[in-house]
Amino acid sequence: MLAEIKGINEECGVFGIWGHEKAAEITYYGLHALQHRGQEGAGVVVSDGSSLKVHKGLGLVNDVFKRARFSDLSGHAAIGHVRYGTQGDGGIDNVQPLLFRSQSGSMALAHNGNIMNAYKLRGELEAEGSILQTSSDTEVLAHLIRRSGKETSEESISDALQEVIGAYAYVILKEDKMYVALDPRGIRPLSIGKIGDAYVVASETCAFDIVGAKFEREVLPGELVTISDKGIESTRFALREQRRMCAMEYVYLSRPDSDLNYVNVHASRKRMGIELAKEAPAEADCVIGVPDSSISAAIGYAEESGLPYEMGIIKNRYVGRTFIQPSQELREQGVKMKLSPVRGIVEGKRVVMIDDSIVRGTTSRRIVRLLKEAGAKEVHVRIASPPIENPCYYGIDMSTNDELIAANNTIDEIAEIIGADSIAYLSAKGLEQAIIKDNTINQGICNACFTGNYPVTEDGQTGISYTKC
Amino acid sequence: MLAEIKGINEECGVFGIWGHEKAAEITYYGLHALQHRGQEGAGVVVSDGSSLKVHKGLGLVNDVFKRARFSDLSGHAAIGHVRYGTQGDGGIDNVQPLLFRSQSGSMALAHNGNIMNAYKLRGELEAEGSILQTSSDTEVLAHLIRRSGKETSEESISDALQEVIGAYAYVILKEDKMYVALDPRGIRPLSIGKIGDAYVVASETCAFDIVGAKFEREVLPGELVTISDKGIESTRFALREQRRMCAMEYVYLSRPDSDLNYVNVHASRKRMGIELAKEAPAEADCVIGVPDSSISAAIGYAEESGLPYEMGIIKNRYVGRTFIQPSQELREQGVKMKLSPVRGIVEGKRVVMIDDSIVRGTTSRRIVRLLKEAGAKEVHVRIASPPIENPCYYGIDMSTNDELIAANNTIDEIAEIIGADSIAYLSAKGLEQAIIKDNTINQGICNACFTGNYPVTEDGQTGISYTKC
Amino acid sequence: MLAEIKGINEECGVFGIWGHEKAAEITYYGLHALQHRGQEGAGVVVSDGSSLKVHKGLGLVNDVFKRARFSDLSGHAAIGHVRYGTQGDGGIDNVQPLLFRSQSGSMALAHNGNIMNAYKLRGELEAEGSILQTSSDTEVLAHLIRRSGKETSEESISDALQEVIGAYAYVILKEDKMYVALDPRGIRPLSIGKIGDAYVVASETCAFDIVGAKFEREVLPGELVTISDKGIESTRFALREQRRMCAMEYVYLSRPDSDLNYVNVHASRKRMGIELAKEAPAEADCVIGVPDSSISAAIGYAEESGLPYEMGIIKNRYVGRTFIQPSQELREQGVKMKLSPVRGIVEGKRVVMIDDSIVRGTTSRRIVRLLKEAGAKEVHVRIASPPIENPCYYGIDMSTNDELIAANNTIDEIAEIIGADSIAYLSAKGLEQAIIKDNTINQGICNACFTGNYPVTEDGQTGISYTKC
Amino acid sequence: MLAEIKGINEECGVFGIWGHEKAAEITYYGLHALQHRGQEGAGVVVSDGSSLKVHKGLGLVNDVFKRARFSDLSGHAAIGHVRYGTQGDGGIDNVQPLLFRSQSGSMALAHNGNIMNAYKLRGELEAEGSILQTSSDTEVLAHLIRRSGKETSEESISDALQEVIGAYAYVILKEDKMYVALDPRGIRPLSIGKIGDAYVVASETCAFDIVGAKFEREVLPGELVTISDKGIESTRFALREQRRMCAMEYVYLSRPDSDLNYVNVHASRKRMGIELAKEAPAEADCVIGVPDSSISAAIGYAEESGLPYEMGIIKNRYVGRTFIQPSQELREQGVKMKLSPVRGIVEGKRVVMIDDSIVRGTTSRRIVRLLKEAGAKEVHVRIASPPIENPCYYGIDMSTNDELIAANNTIDEIAEIIGADSIAYLSAKGLEQAIIKDNTINQGICNACFTGNYPVTEDGQTGISYTKC
Repeated sequence: MLAEIKGINEECGVFGIWGHEKAAEITYYGLHALQHRGQEGAGVVVSDGSSLKVHKGLGLVNDVFKRARFSDLSGHAAIGHVRYGTQGDGGIDNVQPLLFRSQSGSMALAHNGNIMNAYKLRGELEAEGSILQTSSDTEVLAHLIRRSGKETSEESISDALQEVIGAYAYVILKEDKMYVALDPRGIRPLSIGKIGDAYVVASETCAFDIVGAKFEREVLPGELVTISDKGIESTRFALREQRRMCAMEYVYLSRPDSDLNYVNVHASRKRMGIELAKEAPAEADCVIGVPDSSISAAIGYAEESGLPYEMGIIKNRYVGRTFIQPSQELREQGVKMKLSPVRGIVEGKRVVMIDDSIVRGTTSRRIVRLLKEAGAKEVHVRIASPPIENPCYYGIDMSTNDELIAANNTIDEIAEIIGADSIAYLSAKGLEQAIIKDNTINQGICNACFTGNYPVTEDGQTGISYTKC
Repeated sequence: MLAEIKGINEECGVFGIWGHEKAAEITYYGLHALQHRGQEGAGVVVSDGSSLKVHKGLGLVNDVFKRARFSDLSGHAAIGHVRYGTQGDGGIDNVQPLLFRSQSGSMALAHNGNIMNAYKLRGELEAEGSILQTSSDTEVLAHLIRRSGKETSEESISDALQEVIGAYAYVILKEDKMYVALDPRGIRPLSIGKIGDAYVVASETCAFDIVGAKFEREVLPGELVTISDKGIESTRFALREQRRMCAMEYVYLSRPDSDLNYVNVHASRKRMGIELAKEAPAEADCVIGVPDSSISAAIGYAEESGLPYEMGIIKNRYVGRTFIQPSQELREQGVKMKLSPVRGIVEGKRVVMIDDSIVRGTTSRRIVRLLKEAGAKEVHVRIASPPIENPCYYGIDMSTNDELIAANNTIDEIAEIIGADSIAYLSAKGLEQAIIKDNTINQGICNACFTGNYPVTEDGQTGISYTKC
Repeated sequence: MLAEIKGINEECGVFGIWGHEKAAEITYYGLHALQHRGQEGAGVVVSDGSSLKVHKGLGLVNDVFKRARFSDLSGHAAIGHVRYGTQGDGGIDNVQPLLFRSQSGSMALAHNGNIMNAYKLRGELEAEGSILQTSSDTEVLAHLIRRSGKETSEESISDALQEVIGAYAYVILKEDKMYVALDPRGIRPLSIGKIGDAYVVASETCAFDIVGAKFEREVLPGELVTISDKGIESTRFALREQRRMCAMEYVYLSRPDSDLNYVNVHASRKRMGIELAKEAPAEADCVIGVPDSSISAAIGYAEESGLPYEMGIIKNRYVGRTFIQPSQELREQGVKMKLSPVRGIVEGKRVVMIDDSIVRGTTSRRIVRLLKEAGAKEVHVRIASPPIENPCYYGIDMSTNDELIAANNTIDEIAEIIGADSIAYLSAKGLEQAIIKDNTINQGICNACFTGNYPVTEDGQTGISYTKC
Repeated sequence: MLAEIKGINEECGVFGIWGHEKAAEITYYGLHALQHRGQEGAGVVVSDGSSLKVHKGLGLVNDVFKRARFSDLSGHAAIGHVRYGTQGDGGIDNVQPLLFRSQSGSMALAHNGNIMNAYKLRGELEAEGSILQTSSDTEVLAHLIRRSGKETSEESISDALQEVIGAYAYVILKEDKMYVALDPRGIRPLSIGKIGDAYVVASETCAFDIVGAKFEREVLPGELVTISDKGIESTRFALREQRRMCAMEYVYLSRPDSDLNYVNVHASRKRMGIELAKEAPAEADCVIGVPDSSISAAIGYAEESGLPYEMGIIKNRYVGRTFIQPSQELREQGVKMKLSPVRGIVEGKRVVMIDDSIVRGTTSRRIVRLLKEAGAKEVHVRIASPPIENPCYYGIDMSTNDELIAANNTIDEIAEIIGADSIAYLSAKGLEQAIIKDNTINQGICNACFTGNYPVTEDGQTGISYTKC
């Protein structure tokens, strides 16, 4: 699933393994399962107990690893990263894990999320004489750890984490230990599993399934986990507060087969569809979903509404980066890019078109038009999440406020802009019910992009955007 | 959709266009949509009115065309081909279209299907001094056309087609004309569409949608269509008989968004699921489908049975040929290949697992085991087509009789072999009802692999297998 | 040595091996040594005693073979080919060896040279119903062999060779035999060697050296050699006449380390330089050669004249086809393509610039200008062969008559056109003395391009050019 | 010229340009000319006046740049680097230029040479809290510059250079300035040229020729040159001492068409051959050189001795990294790797074999054996430089003392080890005469590897080897 058709993009996925003799290969398969979280670059750092070796590159996981020799990457521990990147942000230098060498030992870091006070911290570090080679938040943490200078790495890492404000999931590898940390509100996902006696960590549990690992538990908000040959240990670097897992992970970003904080993504999406059918029914002949992320919600909507679910839009699976894009001329003649409507299904029908979310509205407008050109009589758009009216500071690369269609238009205006016969969104309450089972301290979502209710803030927050993850 | 997990494999897809100044590019996009019909090689031959130019190669459509320069392939007409190939059958020499040059003009041919009397015809041709460079049936037809020596190409092609026995869809390109032909029973699919004034032909209508073409009509059984700057003309080289479109095209081979003989594939699959639910209900908690080809039938089964449809198996989309296959050791440790069960969905559940068909049973056995390992309490297998008990002579590369699980075992034995708690197949009658609307001369299916009722036979048929398509 | 800077281009190289268990790999190394004879495509056909397998592709030998698996190409005999090709002549279809399959066995052919009566033979073959898939002369021979229909392959091949007129070196592979043939005048080079008990044949002996083979003997003019498990046998298909080996092979085309007809190429070139110094001395400070092919002659000239040899021009070794060509703008600013003058050597000097030959004169003009820009006071051009005034019909792709500078200008005019302070050519007699030791029936050269004295002619020769080699 | 057959390897080449609108493209061609100085990786950093952009990668210059888009690398100034690397030293992280970003501006560095006190400086920097991401000396300099903290960059760089001990050529790029610096003894080569109004710098002048630049002058020992839109300025960071240019640059490392410190490399090599012929004549029939670096000396030897120069060894030009290495089995059967003897030249002859230098002796032994197997009656080895008996601390990656054949064996023993009939080396005095014209403060060579006379030393010098260049 190349997430190019959206204005929303996840920033990065992390993976780690400790205690497996094929650590680098397992990491390759794990990163493969996390490919949807970042397609710009990928990398792995391996420890064989006495030194760290790195392999990384620009491109898809397969492209990067086909140039690797696993025999050069032997070791029993590894961390890996897939990176989502924006144009012009440093290329290969920003591909993670970042590896820092010193005469007393090396350290590698990989990260998913965003540090809100990165600009301020950078300024402080540079004023003290530090040199930063990347525009990555990850490098900031490395310098903070180094600056702390506590006796043990655990203490130094804990110190450093208390200085950063934001949303993050970190995996850190030294020759003899692996560290795993989650932000104090648990905004980003991070889980622990096991393959035999080996420990694995990953942004999503789908990476456990592909490598045959069994899920063990979530990393807790504000927890620093240390894994070594002595086993697993846990400390806290922040007080316990209610978790605020990013709702967009459920709505759009994660793979349907992942469990996030003990909740299956597909199942939550189906419940979003069910809630949506209750809140916003439609007079129609069938329900269709925009592939791939809206299929689960569409099936839920169909089940609840009693309308048949149909495959009214097909996604063309252009393999890899070698696909030759059609010229403007051919596109105007009707050569399709990613999505094709199925005339045999939609012709003459009133269709409910389920989408998971709308950012700028350009994709929705195009799909509605495709459906109408294919003969759909009416198109009723139903969105399985609330309107996105606020920016995200926690690591999701959404359009700026100006571009958010829901921040600048009424519901009726949106319907008109995208050419729908009607439009309705799921309520924030409906979304919450679809995702969480109870609202204990262990559960809870961040829905700031829908409600503006930000769980983490920073004084003097700047608008300057460093590279996230 | 790389069709590797099955013992069934389609052989090839054809595409043609006449009267468009970007003929080669349009063919590229068309072949892209037909990629699922053959991944071994692809090619295009273009006519600029005075000469034919060829570009072809081994690999996926993208791999082949990234080495092409469209400026070298200018022309207003083109035919293209994607090829499914078996190990050791000649490599690049067998990639189509085949191009034959002579001092009186050139001719290119591309073909989907199987000529049953190819061995005999080859023997005759060689006895007469012909030299064949490929093991392809397509070359046989070229020699027959040449041998006929009638005044017009139409007559020679018509002569040649009357000599061959089998199932086939042909597109033939000369400098000034394109010919399109379908076998007398219409076993293989072949449709005609238009982009503006340009004519397009393709094995499946999904290739029309991607290039913005509008479906016009089916090529009729026994029809030879001639397209040139003077327009479109039709002749018949065989008497009109009832059409016998290959049922496996609906069951498994074609893309769900294609319409075959005016019937949408997804819709027919959904009806197969509905029929199956009627014929073989199950006491269960949810319905899951084996991706991708069984999803439509699973949704139909869910709708009819009232059970919820869930995403219980995920297909890992390994991109391209660069994927590094896990070693046997890692596979035994649980590293997954193509399909992952979703524990969060199936754990503790009684699931109905819908598959489109079973050939050898090895894939089914593996999926049932994956589901049980992921915690499924019961697995009830329901197959959306009848048992495959007979070989195909019409261009589908199925396992031989010995390997067909249904040819050698009872239903109960099959359930035991694959480890299912129960198993049931759709009846032949149910399948027919799901596909065809009426049973006029224009409609009808070939279900020989299920029933042994072969619509076309050959005296002295040999077991020697030449390369199909 | 990519031969792009000349208007002369060799057409193709052939290689064959019988009786070595690594036949395909040996062929790869052999073709590598013959790479300078053709860079457009390469291929191999292997026999394992019961069937023939092919691997071929467009591009350099390395590019083609990096996609091969030698395990798929097992067999004890193989033939290979490197092809020089012109734009638009059929692409992959014309890459050799060509493989022809029939129910009674297969046959593969590879070829260097040109058949002068190919057009006429094609017309006859097509009139009889044959279909030709390539524009290659090689296919014509295959049809002639087939048409002959003699009891043994030897007889059929002998028959066919008697029908063709031209210059050619053929290697032909069947499951159980390899055939090697040279044209009646021995215009093209072809040698036989041995590795242990295995026989090898190649266009140049440099291919023997790289694979550790020992030279045995030349194939004789008009000889057909049959190699099989029974050993080596020889027959003649033409009367014995004096050999006429292509002089341009010595002057420019072959590698300096090859021995052609028992004469080392480097040594003959050095003698050309010595003769040239005798015939055309120059008042100068040093001698430089145009790399790579003129270095040997320049050293000979320096030795004979007593002037020092200097490295006044350097060839930039752009690796492979990925080199990014400079834009016209950058070229005008002085960004160099292939050849750089060495200012430190030529500044303020009167230089003798040795080149092996001049075709159109454009390259010579460019080099003279480069030398003058680098400070050379005088440039005296000396050419180590006579003026090229006539076209070649025997397989060398030279410019047409209109473009040959020496066919249309006097010596003085040539000097002025290329900007040289003086120019002189080696005489035809001097060239002959440099190459041949005696002038027996076994020795002798074809110098038709210099003298117009063509050793082989055809009645009704057409100007229509089919693909050579 | 891939320098794999030697135990000596140059470490890196640098290039820079200021004031040309195609700065990145010019750098590409410049690096191409410097390819022989490093094949492991290459990179460029461009300034458009307000920011720096980087493109780099592992592999040859062509491989790295074929993935670049020059439109993404617009700017009027650039620095580039080709890197020679040893196994396991960090991969992509060590590829230069290194780019350091800070809120007050960015800085990129590229470097050829070796800092002898790098280990000590790293320790100090790390003790002060600095984090180093690479094992490259270049990063050390960046930290020293940053630590200096003087008002202007010039002052900070000057400060930093005074802390480092060793041999180095640096190019440093900031948004608005380019800095160029050479070590106090001028051990490494570095020249300045101009293309129109634009300034270029390069490790060798061959990079000027390829881009059409005119040589201006050498960078002086201990000089820091600043280039900006205001023109060129020069300061000194070290007292003036006699220059000590690395003699191995003339003997082996540089391209023959380069001028180093106003001396042409080919011409100096030829003089080495002439001196060698005077010092060590041989009774023989011909002179041959080991390609490519010994050809000039061989020609000089031939000229002086009156013996004919012959092409007795040919280098097989395996293109790129895709060459398939012959298996051990095939190598033992005689399949050649890089060098082939020419039987037609050497058979029955007494040959003088000229080589530029001997490190371990394994290559020499192999070549002597090849010549004898090809029939040479006697092989008299003559080496155009003195015996290498001491390690290099100035950036040349030679074998350690233990491996240096001349450090552990007498001349007679060496002759026996390599199988030569006689052997002789050029004297240190002869080498000096061949290279330098006078011995003023501006001229002079470092011949420490021959004589042990080291021009630069460090107290407490450690044996720990960081990555050079």
